[in-house]
Amino acid sequence: MKVAQVLHMNGGIGETSYANNSILQKKVLSLTKEMRDEAIKNLCCITFPKRLGIADLGCSSGPNTLFVISEVIKLVEKLCKEQNHESPEYQVFLNDLPGNDFNNIFKSLDKFKEKLNDEFEGGNGPACFFNGVPSSFYGRIFPTKSLHFIHSSYSLQWLSQVPKGVENNKGNIYMANTSPENVLKAYYEQFQRDFSLFLKCRAEELVERGRMVLTILGRKSDHKYSKECCYIWELLAVALNEMVLEGIIMEEQMDTFNIPQYTPSPSEVRLEVLREGSFTIDCLEVTTVHWNAYDDFNDIDFESDDLSKPFIDGAYNVTNCMRAVAEPLLASHFGEAIIEEVFGRYLEILADRMSKEKTEFINVSISMTKKV
Amino acid sequence: MKVAQVLHMNGGIGETSYANNSILQKKVLSLTKEMRDEAIKNLCCITFPKRLGIADLGCSSGPNTLFVISEVIKLVEKLCKEQNHESPEYQVFLNDLPGNDFNNIFKSLDKFKEKLNDEFEGGNGPACFFNGVPSSFYGRIFPTKSLHFIHSSYSLQWLSQVPKGVENNKGNIYMANTSPENVLKAYYEQFQRDFSLFLKCRAEELVERGRMVLTILGRKSDHKYSKECCYIWELLAVALNEMVLEGIIMEEQMDTFNIPQYTPSPSEVRLEVLREGSFTIDCLEVTTVHWNAYDDFNDIDFESDDLSKPFIDGAYNVTNCMRAVAEPLLASHFGEAIIEEVFGRYLEILADRMSKEKTEFINVSISMTKKV
Repeated sequence: MKVAQVLHMNGGIGETSYANNSILQKKVLSLTKEMRDEAIKNLCCITFPKRLGIADLGCSSGPNTLFVISEVIKLVEKLCKEQNHESPEYQVFLNDLPGNDFNNIFKSLDKFKEKLNDEFEGGNGPACFFNGVPSSFYGRIFPTKSLHFIHSSYSLQWLSQVPKGVENNKGNIYMANTSPENVLKAYYEQFQRDFSLFLKCRAEELVERGRMVLTILGRKSDHKYSKECCYIWELLAVALNEMVLEGIIMEEQMDTFNIPQYTPSPSEVRLEVLREGSFTIDCLEVTTVHWNAYDDFNDIDFESDDLSKPFIDGAYNVTNCMRAVAEPLLASHFGEAIIEEVFGRYLEILADRMSKEKTEFINVSISMTKKV
Repeated sequence: MKVAQVLHMNGGIGETSYANNSILQKKVLSLTKEMRDEAIKNLCCITFPKRLGIADLGCSSGPNTLFVISEVIKLVEKLCKEQNHESPEYQVFLNDLPGNDFNNIFKSLDKFKEKLNDEFEGGNGPACFFNGVPSSFYGRIFPTKSLHFIHSSYSLQWLSQVPKGVENNKGNIYMANTSPENVLKAYYEQFQRDFSLFLKCRAEELVERGRMVLTILGRKSDHKYSKECCYIWELLAVALNEMVLEGIIMEEQMDTFNIPQYTPSPSEVRLEVLREGSFTIDCLEVTTVHWNAYDDFNDIDFESDDLSKPFIDGAYNVTNCMRAVAEPLLASHFGEAIIEEVFGRYLEILADRMSKEKTEFINVSISMTKKV
């Protein structure tokens, strides 16, 4: 099928991006469930506080926003029952940047609470108090020692800013094998500063022996410009470079555009945690998920989501998924006008590459305990 | 000036409702400042916790949302300095119904924090953590003993629902002197249930000796159908009844429409607090503010708000103010189509009445301490 036809059939790129992101995130969350469960079980071995503070950082506002929260609450309740403890009151904090659509989350909360209550005897679930927290997590966002469990999935690869000193990353928009050494170094150092600050802040906010489980889009390889993490952006750069050649985008504009992301390796994550020093590492693991998460179709727990199209053209899904994250960055740098054109080209390029090679995202997941 | 001209000049009713509401609320907040300050001073006499939990219930999303919070923080900081105490960390909870525009509040927070910091030496304000809490306050919304100060202004006159058994309140939309006795009773009993539940929940959420300051739109008189609280709705009923007579609204529709509000007297408020039993009353007072708050122009602290029109036609302001609260109720009962017509007529009626008599809102304010 021609790309133009796919676009038309689906009412233009972008409209289904939510659902697709949802599938990818849900897939990742199912891969890391065991790690979260283990952390919660260990937490409940040492403490059953009256108030349990739980935070999801970078919660977004889609159907997965409350998935982990619900899972955690159900597990703690099960453990309470087994160990004959009174239920805690759950104070839930949903964090994202102030531009996130919190109104959308908030409007879905009543239905969520109803559904959660239905899972308990007599529809009588525990007391849960929900809060929206609109702030960058690269800074303090909670009172000292107020949280017991922190979760974040697919958010920490985002840096607080594009690194300084990457002006000579010409023709690229992210780290690539043609990136000069200073660019790779600048990206890595920005990650180190950001992740270290993140760890320091969370350590202050967690109670002693509090738990944190993070999943970060990353890579396996020691090479920062490894194809496994950079290829998806390189293909977007191909589309942009074509448009530079055709005079649609100015070369200077292209040269000054870089993605504020860093996809760390497991050893880089470990190193930073050890260096910062507030946490012990309980578990560090790498999982993979196909660019088009529908390809892992059989593994997905579809539960309640409305997934009426079990198979949609793969490149189309990936384009939408990437568009959801890249469009705001592209639009603010290049202007709205080029967006449709960029993603039309990106779709063609992805369709070609995905038909010829196996393409995967790498997830680095880490489970940690706050030191006493 | 003819009403139609005023409407045209201002680009239609509704557009300036925000600013007007803002003036009215700001006026009320300035009248109750002393009561809040007194409560905070007393609170700081007994405790300087490491974390100070502050909640504003029914925070809305206009320019006044953060006004009280800023005032409280500045006063506590001043007291800390005077008494040589370390600053607490402020955990601020902004509560309203899930349909409130929290996105709008959240986008203004960075600017607010910047402005707040500027008030301190070296731009170095205290640590403040902001949370949005989307829930009805007629139920538990915070963990047990997690708050030190609760504030609510102009929200508690709203009932959790239209009272049951007011079917025979024909021709009226609120309590009126033509309302049957059972209607007045049903309204009062709904207020008693709601306010009592509110007090019980807040008592559980406040620490011992925690403080609560409430301002409720109310009345001075012992008569529930007193003109001072019911007239503003009676005039809206006049507009609706005209439209019934003209066949624009069906009589059955009019008969089943009632406003879920109760405007209590100081003694009704006192009685409920005493009956519920969790709080001691420190102060109970009544203030008044003109329907058109611009009339109290000289008393207002204008500070930073952009008030480029110091005098706008009074009835127009009041119509906008009432429209902001009544439109959602009217639209969901009668449909969107009649809205412009209703408020056009209401404006004419208000303009006539306000030119002939002194018209005031009555505010009942109460300051309480949670018993040990």
